[in-house]
Amino acid sequence: MYDPSFLYLKKVRVRKNVIPHHKNQCMKIGFIGLGNLGTPIAENLLEKRKELYVYNRTAAKAQHLIAKGATLCQSVKELASLCDIVISIVSDDAAINNITQGENGIAANLKAEGIHISMSTILPATSIALAQLHQQHNNNYITAPILGRPEAAKARKLNFLVSGNEELQDVIEPILHDAGAVNIWTYGEDAGAANTAKLCSNYLIVSAIQAMSEGISLARHSGIDAEQWMNMLTQTIFAAPAYINYGNLLLKEAYQPAAFSLKLALKDVNLVAEQASETQANMPLGKLLQQQMNKCIEKGMGDYDVTALALALS
Amino acid sequence: MYDPSFLYLKKVRVRKNVIPHHKNQCMKIGFIGLGNLGTPIAENLLEKRKELYVYNRTAAKAQHLIAKGATLCQSVKELASLCDIVISIVSDDAAINNITQGENGIAANLKAEGIHISMSTILPATSIALAQLHQQHNNNYITAPILGRPEAAKARKLNFLVSGNEELQDVIEPILHDAGAVNIWTYGEDAGAANTAKLCSNYLIVSAIQAMSEGISLARHSGIDAEQWMNMLTQTIFAAPAYINYGNLLLKEAYQPAAFSLKLALKDVNLVAEQASETQANMPLGKLLQQQMNKCIEKGMGDYDVTALALALS
Repeated sequence: MYDPSFLYLKKVRVRKNVIPHHKNQCMKIGFIGLGNLGTPIAENLLEKRKELYVYNRTAAKAQHLIAKGATLCQSVKELASLCDIVISIVSDDAAINNITQGENGIAANLKAEGIHISMSTILPATSIALAQLHQQHNNNYITAPILGRPEAAKARKLNFLVSGNEELQDVIEPILHDAGAVNIWTYGEDAGAANTAKLCSNYLIVSAIQAMSEGISLARHSGIDAEQWMNMLTQTIFAAPAYINYGNLLLKEAYQPAAFSLKLALKDVNLVAEQASETQANMPLGKLLQQQMNKCIEKGMGDYDVTALALALS
Repeated sequence: MYDPSFLYLKKVRVRKNVIPHHKNQCMKIGFIGLGNLGTPIAENLLEKRKELYVYNRTAAKAQHLIAKGATLCQSVKELASLCDIVISIVSDDAAINNITQGENGIAANLKAEGIHISMSTILPATSIALAQLHQQHNNNYITAPILGRPEAAKARKLNFLVSGNEELQDVIEPILHDAGAVNIWTYGEDAGAANTAKLCSNYLIVSAIQAMSEGISLARHSGIDAEQWMNMLTQTIFAAPAYINYGNLLLKEAYQPAAFSLKLALKDVNLVAEQASETQANMPLGKLLQQQMNKCIEKGMGDYDVTALALALS
């Protein structure tokens, strides 16, 4: 039933890198968004590239990187005008619109042919609109959201989901590797495609957490050892990182500090619901997840880890 | 984040086999329930043991085994009186009560110290009651439900979940290996414990199918290649047999023939709901799964594979 050879399918589209290595290495890179995931990615880049321009709304979060040699910019505009490549990883659609649009935004200030690499989890439609805006300014937008938690970023084991102009995908490939990519998965030319893939992936993660929470609860209410049961599953039919890692957090009830906060997870499920409504897809489980997560938010658990979903059962 | 060494934890409790090998080999084994999963298990046993007594409500299903040397019994009573060990794998709680209770049942006709190995997916309370009934007849009941589809049985890669008297667990271990066990997971002395573990496991499987169905639907409605997306997930955070196998069936829309039918899966989710109600566990996802599965049953899809759950979305 389980064919391990399936795991060794080809992962990355093979294509020629159109930019010579030395030229790619000379590109000035800017980084916006030093959150839980952004910070270790910026550290990876600084380690490989030696030079990195950074901007963060809360400047204090940049101190650690500046001590290591990064250059702090005072505004998005300053950073965008200095760099060839701007990487952004911010919390939601409003935040990315805010830093990208307008006369002080990335699109208006990035040089011609510059590239904005957008790693945030946002709606496909937002990426499509921002790609058009960049095109109007003769520069470029590439979508590159991430599968992976902060620990994976530190271990350089991130999976990047990429879509947008294919020649530019070649250009940014070495940058993504320097940022901590273990794999790069391409979803074609449509700027929104990688966002769709990312939203669908997070949906499966939150669903699995809900299912595990309920399973662990039934196991415990029925008097069996829930840890023993999950150990069995994560060595057999559910032997996957999502079940091993989130299962472990659920069993330990390790809700703080959050690696992936409940409020950000709810934001993603809300985006899934919005995308479902936009495309007339039927997602009844999504409604249930929203209800359960909102219960947790109401109880003041927004900054807890997403696995605190289990607490909505009690 | 993903520690593969975790997968190599010790799987099977080490203990001495109290029955010498030659004696164990001489035990007469009877088998009741030649369904999709029962048949390949019975074939495995016949291959290793050379001798096997079989009974099935529909006798025609036994023809193939009889041609290979199995002995057909005309009734449960006849089979139980001839055998040291009776293995049963039937469709539900009513069926196992029917073959076990009463003057023609397994408990009343199995010899003193004989063992009934119950592989069906049933309520813990049913196992507890049947274990008591066997005790009254001076014979034994051991719970041993299975994780694995018919293909896994043929490949001798079944995971058995076992609970009941621990000395008897030792006795039946070689029999489970002959039946196709790749691993035996013990849940202690409580006859109902392995049933709880099995119900919780099936709950996670059906939940994952529901989540994947919705994810694939959103991917397709949004215009991305759902197969490419699932390929990525099953090579990364969801690299587990449950996601690989059921994901593949969902993508192919291969709803017939059923390896695990929708009506049997609904029976399991109904048992989960009953157990949840019995133990005051809160399982909101269970209600949703019941609704979606009942929609499929109403459309006449009861004999389709459980992955036909996807059709309840359209």
